[in-house]
Amino acid sequence: MSGTPSGTRKGAGASSGTPSDPPRRRGRPAGKRAGAAAGTRERILAAAREEFSAHGYDKTSVRSIGKAADVDAALVHHYFGTKDQVFAAAIELSFGPALELPGAMAAGGPDGMGERVARFMLGVWENGATRGPLLAIVRSAVTNERAAAVFRGLVGRRVLARVAGELRVPDPEFRVQLAAAQLVGIIMLRYVVKVEPIASASPEDLVAVVAPTLQRYLTDPDVRPGAAQQQRD
Amino acid sequence: MSGTPSGTRKGAGASSGTPSDPPRRRGRPAGKRAGAAAGTRERILAAAREEFSAHGYDKTSVRSIGKAADVDAALVHHYFGTKDQVFAAAIELSFGPALELPGAMAAGGPDGMGERVARFMLGVWENGATRGPLLAIVRSAVTNERAAAVFRGLVGRRVLARVAGELRVPDPEFRVQLAAAQLVGIIMLRYVVKVEPIASASPEDLVAVVAPTLQRYLTDPDVRPGAAQQQRD
Repeated sequence: MSGTPSGTRKGAGASSGTPSDPPRRRGRPAGKRAGAAAGTRERILAAAREEFSAHGYDKTSVRSIGKAADVDAALVHHYFGTKDQVFAAAIELSFGPALELPGAMAAGGPDGMGERVARFMLGVWENGATRGPLLAIVRSAVTNERAAAVFRGLVGRRVLARVAGELRVPDPEFRVQLAAAQLVGIIMLRYVVKVEPIASASPEDLVAVVAPTLQRYLTDPDVRPGAAQQQRD
Repeated sequence: MSGTPSGTRKGAGASSGTPSDPPRRRGRPAGKRAGAAAGTRERILAAAREEFSAHGYDKTSVRSIGKAADVDAALVHHYFGTKDQVFAAAIELSFGPALELPGAMAAGGPDGMGERVARFMLGVWENGATRGPLLAIVRSAVTNERAAAVFRGLVGRRVLARVAGELRVPDPEFRVQLAAAQLVGIIMLRYVVKVEPIASASPEDLVAVVAPTLQRYLTDPDVRPGAAQQQRD
């Protein structure tokens, strides 16, 4: 995807990351991504995404990513750390479009929020270019506990927590997860298992039937985690 | 799981299947499951379920199933046919409890249907003994296209179509799939990816918040696949 296959040496330059960079763990080298080095990092990341997409989490190694990017495995470690950290960066790249959700959701206040969320998420999945890498990530997260942990941490922090932060109601995390569950299920049936008629329904028809569900989860005061217990006590 | 490790010879006895037997494909031997032979078939099936659970669809072969059941691979073919057909039988065994859903749903008419369905399905997944094999099947269906096709065919025919048959509203398949999507998403977030707080919510609290969603999908006349288009035309 990216170019500039030069400058793979360590210690080149010294710039700080951009504000959109993922948080870097302690003990990892930092501030070495100026100019040509940034090209190398991007090339490794693109290779990582392709490797994880094509072979899944289990069958992808730091070594195979290095090979695909035509660099030494040590350089992959240098830029990203462990396999899990490369995987997290690859998820972040694949989830790029979905990371815009909190902004899209906040744009119009509570009214019509369910509809906006449904339309946004279906739009991301209807786009063939973004769907492939997303599917690959989901498959890895479903089949491997470690991949699931990375996925949970990143999606939880970057999407769910931010979406929850936009809600002005009690139990925002629980609500966001109920809404996410509805969308995840539709994604599973429509794009992964491909059951008819849901696989061929128009996106707008799905938005129309799903929007009231999401609206209720995200805004209805009666939705709360301890509801059943409180009623019975 | 099953006993009687005797009688692996072919052609033993000649009985017809019970009414609950899965449909047999043409070209496959039939009517050979009386007495000891039935024990062998069950032993192979139990081994198949364990192999698919432990190693997934990709890494399980008719040969490995035969080995686990201590019979020749030819005998696995003899009783079940292809790998996909053994997989279908293993799904059917694992989905045993879920196959009762149509009956449970039909038992009380439209009122409270959403709540009954939610409670039934969460009950199946809360049971540790049934959850393991179900998770294994879901993982295989998510990662392998052929496994997905077998899963789609069997779950579609044995669960979704029957549930749809209980509904007295237009577009029953679409409705049932919307309800299934909601439950599948909850299963994914709660049991597979294990996101908090949904992973630790009490089953009854989940039933309470999800039941109105399922009720609407299954019974509300406004839910229909072409709703958005009709409104806009």
